[in-house]
Order: sequence, then structure tokens, then C-alpha cells
Amino acid sequence: MNERTEVSSLGEFALIDHLTKNIEIHNVSSILGVGDDAAVIDHFGKQTVVTNDLLIEGVHFDLMYTPLKHLGYKTVAVNVSDICAMNATPTQILLGIAFSNRFSLEALDDFYEGVYAACEQYKVDLIGGDTTTSQKGFIISCTAIGEVAPDKYVTRKGAQKGELLCVTGDLGAAFLGLTLLEREKKIFLENPKVQPDLEGETYTVGKILKPEARVDVIEYFEKTGITPTAMIDVSDGLSSEILHICQQSGVGCVLYEEKIPVTEETRKAAFKFNLDPTACALSGGEDYELLFTIKQDDFEKLSGENSISVIGYITDEDAGANIITKGGGKHPITAQGWNAFK
Amino acid sequence: MNERTEVSSLGEFALIDHLTKNIEIHNVSSILGVGDDAAVIDHFGKQTVVTNDLLIEGVHFDLMYTPLKHLGYKTVAVNVSDICAMNATPTQILLGIAFSNRFSLEALDDFYEGVYAACEQYKVDLIGGDTTTSQKGFIISCTAIGEVAPDKYVTRKGAQKGELLCVTGDLGAAFLGLTLLEREKKIFLENPKVQPDLEGETYTVGKILKPEARVDVIEYFEKTGITPTAMIDVSDGLSSEILHICQQSGVGCVLYEEKIPVTEETRKAAFKFNLDPTACALSGGEDYELLFTIKQDDFEKLSGENSISVIGYITDEDAGANIITKGGGKHPITAQGWNAFK
Repeated sequence: MNERTEVSSLGEFALIDHLTKNIEIHNVSSILGVGDDAAVIDHFGKQTVVTNDLLIEGVHFDLMYTPLKHLGYKTVAVNVSDICAMNATPTQILLGIAFSNRFSLEALDDFYEGVYAACEQYKVDLIGGDTTTSQKGFIISCTAIGEVAPDKYVTRKGAQKGELLCVTGDLGAAFLGLTLLEREKKIFLENPKVQPDLEGETYTVGKILKPEARVDVIEYFEKTGITPTAMIDVSDGLSSEILHICQQSGVGCVLYEEKIPVTEETRKAAFKFNLDPTACALSGGEDYELLFTIKQDDFEKLSGENSISVIGYITDEDAGANIITKGGGKHPITAQGWNAFK
Repeated sequence: MNERTEVSSLGEFALIDHLTKNIEIHNVSSILGVGDDAAVIDHFGKQTVVTNDLLIEGVHFDLMYTPLKHLGYKTVAVNVSDICAMNATPTQILLGIAFSNRFSLEALDDFYEGVYAACEQYKVDLIGGDTTTSQKGFIISCTAIGEVAPDKYVTRKGAQKGELLCVTGDLGAAFLGLTLLEREKKIFLENPKVQPDLEGETYTVGKILKPEARVDVIEYFEKTGITPTAMIDVSDGLSSEILHICQQSGVGCVLYEEKIPVTEETRKAAFKFNLDPTACALSGGEDYELLFTIKQDDFEKLSGENSISVIGYITDEDAGANIITKGGGKHPITAQGWNAFK
């Protein structure tokens, strides 16, 4: 057990073979995958949706409490989430990784185990990528590709006055999971003999370490004939995402605090840290739920999907973006989302 | 002059706006670009070709002698080159960058100036990406997308006995340019007062700092009706690329040393370092020329393009991959290409 194989003992091509030999292809559109200068895709008359993300150790993740398998899963999930946010179906990913000699072949296997689990979960094909060294830490570049019927993609720009503001799942849990892991890390660094106290925190910790992309909601939209007018995924916190939709659509909105979905587990975790659960939902981020607007006529179509909450409505731009608190107060929504440059 | 603006003074979204405000769109297939969760592409019945690359400071480039503008240009060029190697036309790129606070806004502007110059040169559209921080150095992730008529893409697998082995342009120059820059860096580090001696070395230094992708050759193929049977771009050295084609096609080959295109500038530079020009072409890499095989019937169609050299022919697999030297000796071709993990 705990074998350690140096990556340098394989060489680049043997390493790529090793990491990609178990690839399973789920989509007929994946014509040519790993092993050539580029991959080839045929979307048969659909439009192609594409996004990419860079994830850097020490900036986007901390390997002290992030298992590599979870990191692999999350890498795919967060990129798939961006494809979902366009109302598209994810189909392929390309994955580039760079790592220092601190990482063994077994560590890379753990990471890829998570990647393949997510590919299986979301039925996406790993069709290409790059594998190289870094001077420091683990660096991940992920490109996700999806398909959508011609002109059925949904941007952040289409929200109109009178439409409903909706969000999937629940919010704030990932931020509290992260807060908890950061606390346990601090305690561990001060006294390595103290064991982490994560009892009863499975939900929040699970949300930060292994988020899921809402492919199921995109499928529900297609099945029920709902086309959101604007959509974005909640990666930086609800406030920040609402403001993106309002600014890009040229509208305002009213958000009801009492309608924001926050689970009991999240509330309890928030109170432990003397945090306001609503603030965690508004500013926390990393929820990877979908925030979208729909026409009022589509309201009844939501009834079959109890993981969607109507949290407010769209107004004129002049009215601004406001939250009505539980106490009845009205306040402008401000973005306090994550900024990598601060 | 030499102003320095801290990136942190802008924040992420203002930075993205700043870096992408001058984007020009060249392709009708670029339906939706920068500014949403993902970009949207419509290739109108063509197949999509996609590749990605990670470039890490200290591993793939040295900013001590690589101007950021050249680095931006090269990032696009090397990814476009992979698209060309599939016999496809490059159409879009996505660009992710991560950088430490050592990099000012002006430095990023230099980098993007090169990126946009390459987008203009190759008529590709920058349609998305990611902008974030790194703990150390400059990290680049580039995804390039291209289009090809259905099933007209060319892999490394199609070479057959009797076909001609061809290469574009000339080889070995980039390796000598790099050798020269590394020597000047070493001299500078030992004695910072010594000025770099790059006189007469414009060609080799130009090839390493600002390589060009052979989009022109792909256009020539289309115009003259040539479809290569196998193709790869020369990034790791001629030997390594020939072996990829032979192994993946299940064939052998004969390569004539005297036919390998090496310019007079490259020969002179090689002799200065007591290096064999042929060895530089075989093992140097970073040439970004195209290596391909064609049927003998297509030979006459090459006559209109004097930048293509026939350097050998394809044999049975059993005959192996061999080079016939200028002296008439026959030796197996061995890969000594670049390995990031050694």
C-alpha cells in the first residue's frame, strides 16, 4: 500500500497512456479523442458551447483538506456547470494538468479517478488535454464543450420586467463547508494532535469538496419546455450573480430574503460561526446552483421540480436591484463575491 | 513611460473588460464570445476540431529573454499549429491566464497585444477564457478550435507504404535560437554589464520567440486538392514526430538526411556551437512546421509550393524507421525529443 511511483520513470507518452487508457466514450459527437494533435467533434446541426477554467493550487484549492479524487470530480463539475448555465448539454472535456515532482503517479491516479467518475456522472467524454510539469504546485486547465439546439442557448442578457427570478437547490452550504475546513486546518497547524471535528457537517463539507452541476435541471427544462430568459451559475455568491443578470439585461429586481433556499444544516453551521445564513447565501459562492429568470407563463411548469425556488422578480432598471429582508426592510443588493485579485 | 498599474486596483471584471475590449470577430461561426458562462459556436455542418495547451513560466518559457508580446503571439500560434496539423482551419481560441502580483496591467497589455496580433494574423476569434492569480509565475492555458469539412480531418494514423514523407519550411532554427538565448542569459547572469550578442542571429531567434503556424499550407492543400494521409506538427523534433506517425500508422520509413531542409543561417549557428545541424533538426523541436505523408499521385501538386520538401518515403512496418545519412549509412531513427518530466 501507499506505493509511490515517480512520474519521471514513465516519460510523457507512457504517462498519458496510463492516465487515459480507461476512457469511455458516451457521445456519438466525439469522433476523435485523446492521442492526436487535436480532437474532432461533430454536433450534427447543433451549436457548440465552450468554456474554460484555470484552477491553481493555493488560489482555488488547498490540498491539505481537498482529496485529489474530489478535486478531479469538482474540476469537471464546475466546468460542466458553466455549460449548463448556457442551457446546453455537456458533451466533452479537455483537461490540462501541470504538477511538480511532489506528485506521484498514484496521486495523479486519484485525481483522474475523480475526473472519470464525473465524466460518468455527467456523460461527458474526455477527448484531449495536456500533461506537463510545474515549478510549484498543481495546476489544472479544463475546457468543457456542450451542445444546444440552434439559438436555444441562454445568456445573462435576456431578463425582462415582470419575469420570475429562480434558483435551484440551496445556497450558502459550500461557503460554510469551506469555513469549517479552514478552521480545522488552522487548529491542526497549531496542534497536529487534534483530530478534525467534522461530525454532523457532511452536508456543508460535501458541497464544497464535491459540488454537482445541475445537468438534471437542464434536462427538466427540455422535458417541460421551459426556456429561461437569462441564466448564470452561482459560483461567486447569489448577490454577485444577480447583479450580473441585472447589469447585462439592463433590468432591476426584487429579491425576498425569506425565499432564499438555505437548508437547516447550513443554518446550524452558520450559527456555530456566528454568521448570518442569508449573508452566507448572498456572498458565499461555490454553490454551482443555477440562477435564472422565466416568464410568468412558465411558472406552473416549475411545479414538477421541487428543487427550484422562486426568490423574486425582475423590475425596471431604474428601480435597482433590491432585497426585501425578513423584517420588511428594503436594501440595495451589493456584490461581495470572491475576487482573486484582492 | 514605464507606468505600472497594479491589477488589484481594477478587480476581476474591470480587468477582463480592459483586456477584451478591443476584440475583433473574424468568423461568422463565433456566435457568442467573451462575457458569459461559455461561448457559442456554429460551424454550419462542419466538424469541430479542438486542442488545448498549458504553458508554464520556468518550464515552457523564460521571461528573462521572452518579451511578453512575443509570448502572447506564440501562445496562439502553437495552438493554431495543432489545429492545422488536423488539416483544419483555425476559427476561435479561449485563453486562460494566471499571474502573480509581479505582473502589472501594462505587462498583461503587452501579452494581449501579441495575442491580438496573432488573432489578426490567423483570423481567429478570442471568445472566452479565464483570468486569475497564481502563487508563482505566469501560467497560460490556451484552447484552440477549428473547423473542417466532414471527415476531412487528418490524424497521425493514415500513412501507407509507398507514400511520400514531406515537411514544410525548414527545421532546427528554433532550437539554435533557444541555445543562443540560453547562452546569452548565462553570460548576463555572470556579468550583467555584458550586452547580448545576437548579431546576425535574427532568423534563429525569431523562430524560437515568434514561430508561425502553417495556416498557409492548409490553404494550399485545399486549393490544390491535396489531402495528406497523415499529419503532425513538429513541436518535439523531427525524429520524435516521424516515430509518432510510423507507430500510429503501423508503418516504417526511409528519411534522407540530405533532404532535411535546414537554412544557411541555421547551419552557421549550429557550427558556432559545435552542433551538427542535422541533429538540431532531428531532435531540436519547437519548429511548428507540418510533417505529413501524401500519395505519390499528389507529388506534382506540390510544385506550386516551394516551402514543402519531400524528405523520404513510407515503408512496411517491418523495415523500421531509418535515416540514410549523407555518407550513405543507414541508422534507425531514435526519439530524443523534449520530455517535460526528465
